[in-house]
Amino acid sequence: MAQIDFKKELETASKSMIMIHDPKLLIKLIVRMIVRKLRVKHAAMVLYESDRDAYVLSISRGEAGVKLPAGYTRFNHESPLIKLFSRKEYKHLTYNRNAIVSEDINRFIWHETVIKNSNGNGHEIRELLHKVNEQMEMLSSVACVPAYYRHTLMVVLLLGEKYDETKFSQEELDFFAALASDAAMAIRNAQLFTHLKAQSERNRKLFLQTINVLGSTIEAKDSYTHGHTERVTQYSLAIARQMVANGSEHFSKSFFENLYIAALLHDIGKIAIPEDILNKPGRLTKEEYVIIQKHPIKGAEIITPLSLSQECYNGILYHHEHFDGKGYPEGLEGENIPVSASIIAVADAYDAMTSERPYRKSLDKSFAIEEIERNISTQFSPLPAQAMLELYEKGEV
Amino acid sequence: MAQIDFKKELETASKSMIMIHDPKLLIKLIVRMIVRKLRVKHAAMVLYESDRDAYVLSISRGEAGVKLPAGYTRFNHESPLIKLFSRKEYKHLTYNRNAIVSEDINRFIWHETVIKNSNGNGHEIRELLHKVNEQMEMLSSVACVPAYYRHTLMVVLLLGEKYDETKFSQEELDFFAALASDAAMAIRNAQLFTHLKAQSERNRKLFLQTINVLGSTIEAKDSYTHGHTERVTQYSLAIARQMVANGSEHFSKSFFENLYIAALLHDIGKIAIPEDILNKPGRLTKEEYVIIQKHPIKGAEIITPLSLSQECYNGILYHHEHFDGKGYPEGLEGENIPVSASIIAVADAYDAMTSERPYRKSLDKSFAIEEIERNISTQFSPLPAQAMLELYEKGEV
Repeated sequence: MAQIDFKKELETASKSMIMIHDPKLLIKLIVRMIVRKLRVKHAAMVLYESDRDAYVLSISRGEAGVKLPAGYTRFNHESPLIKLFSRKEYKHLTYNRNAIVSEDINRFIWHETVIKNSNGNGHEIRELLHKVNEQMEMLSSVACVPAYYRHTLMVVLLLGEKYDETKFSQEELDFFAALASDAAMAIRNAQLFTHLKAQSERNRKLFLQTINVLGSTIEAKDSYTHGHTERVTQYSLAIARQMVANGSEHFSKSFFENLYIAALLHDIGKIAIPEDILNKPGRLTKEEYVIIQKHPIKGAEIITPLSLSQECYNGILYHHEHFDGKGYPEGLEGENIPVSASIIAVADAYDAMTSERPYRKSLDKSFAIEEIERNISTQFSPLPAQAMLELYEKGEV
Repeated sequence: MAQIDFKKELETASKSMIMIHDPKLLIKLIVRMIVRKLRVKHAAMVLYESDRDAYVLSISRGEAGVKLPAGYTRFNHESPLIKLFSRKEYKHLTYNRNAIVSEDINRFIWHETVIKNSNGNGHEIRELLHKVNEQMEMLSSVACVPAYYRHTLMVVLLLGEKYDETKFSQEELDFFAALASDAAMAIRNAQLFTHLKAQSERNRKLFLQTINVLGSTIEAKDSYTHGHTERVTQYSLAIARQMVANGSEHFSKSFFENLYIAALLHDIGKIAIPEDILNKPGRLTKEEYVIIQKHPIKGAEIITPLSLSQECYNGILYHHEHFDGKGYPEGLEGENIPVSASIIAVADAYDAMTSERPYRKSLDKSFAIEEIERNISTQFSPLPAQAMLELYEKGEV
């Protein structure tokens, strides 16, 4: 390994490291690089995990014989190698070499015994060094390189013998120290990224669950809509998927999320409609019907403070528009009806027909599907209605 | 600047860079380090901003005379320096030096004119070099160093003269190139962090806003509670702040957030109570009162799918418990009533008294406060009730 190689390898490695935000992948790449490019028979990485306050053997690569079972081997703060690298009083043992190397250990022990003549903590140091030696043998390592992040031991790189069986030069050890140090930093960076990402996802999930609860509040009030919201949402998503499958639309991931939210909240405006009208068993009067028809507008008003996407807003506001322009609240026509609204309209009608209502029993699925087919291009937009028929034929609704 | 210094400076700089996740701070630190430690009269950084698809002079440091107005100077893809560093056909002009240096430019122009004898794109190159020269003078720079991230020009480091007025050596330019390259990566990393953090905060805000909408749905139903939810929330937070101020409690930031959510949702269970009972103008019958008393339990049920914190859940479930054990739903007593619930209880009672109800007009604030004082240790827990009295005395409620 010439000097120029070290530099280049380190530069390349460090560069790629920062941008990898998956800690596990990162560790894997580093250890693999050491084994493959740097001609070491075995390499492993021990990593500090702050949530467990322990060191874990995260990965081990190399010849079959010297591979260690990763993930399970844990080292606490009293583990010999961890103690050696963490405590100030042992710093002098590794400072000059940036590492502990097995061939040094006997020399150290001899030094502590003969030169220092068992004064001070010589006995303790000898004992620790003996234990370190045993541990390194157990871990198939001839050199161990520590790396720190803000004075905390973050990483210990375990290195097996080189293929050419020569000893590690100081230059090589310095290289490994620099690599381990960059790795410690990159791993810390990746851990923060993972943490932040999880937090963001948790918040997103919480938002969507709250939308779900918000959508279901209407069911506490309107006794005939039990499960309606949930079913309309499932039908709407199925219709959209079918429209993609039959090639009539190319919906993005965010379209599906907006459709999901809009479907969950499509009837939220009914919160503002008196219960005696919502739950009336007989036919509604003209005046009562006018009040009920306000629910899409009320719904759009209720969700306004959320500043949801236009697609969401439209899905709620226009889910009672008809393709022929005879719906409400605005009498939009044909292609002017937003896609999400036209999908929810079909799903809503299908569920209304196939579940019990104040004024009638539930109807057969086949009847509901015939009704939808009969009203294509009058009440229903052709593409979502067609998709609904296809779902029925496939037995998916 | 000896070689050893470069290495150390770069190592130190790179290390600190990765962990700084505020892009602006990061750029500031890098440019400051160049000016202070590397003895350059002036340094500036031009940074690619992907959302504007443009290069922006992000910061400029140095002697007063050569400081440039940062933030406003923008360079598009046709700007001479950007063109020079971005396009393949000009790569040979900067490749060997990792930079463009003003003293080279005339030599390049001469070379393109005499040696290449205006063949090929020589004319175009000469013109570009003239423009680069002008631009560098305008930017008080004698050397410009590019850095790339995945083949995209990310950073141009602008360097003024050195204090000792010697020319930049190749070694120095290589150092700046390595520094700029590390900076490009670190800035990219920081930008991703900022982006992810903003996303997480957006999702959190969306969640809290949805909670807010969820809390206010009850007002669409219960005509006498207009603004009640919002006011109880404000009173609850004020009481908690006052309890911290008078030294009786030390609430964490998350306690306040949980209290906020619980207060917004404290009456959500009323969604499940019939409107005619909620809005009854006369006195309630015993049976009706039993039904109304179910709203804390219904509320806790409604929010169960959200898996909110225990503090939130308790705040909703127990906001009608009394200190003497005579409240509902469980008849909890004294310290057994969760703090958030005991705070909401005081806020709720105060707002109920000071706003109009189905069966009476609103009462005077002073009367409401006297009522709370009279019922300390019977209905109300002493600490939040005391805090409410203090808020009244300070004129804050």
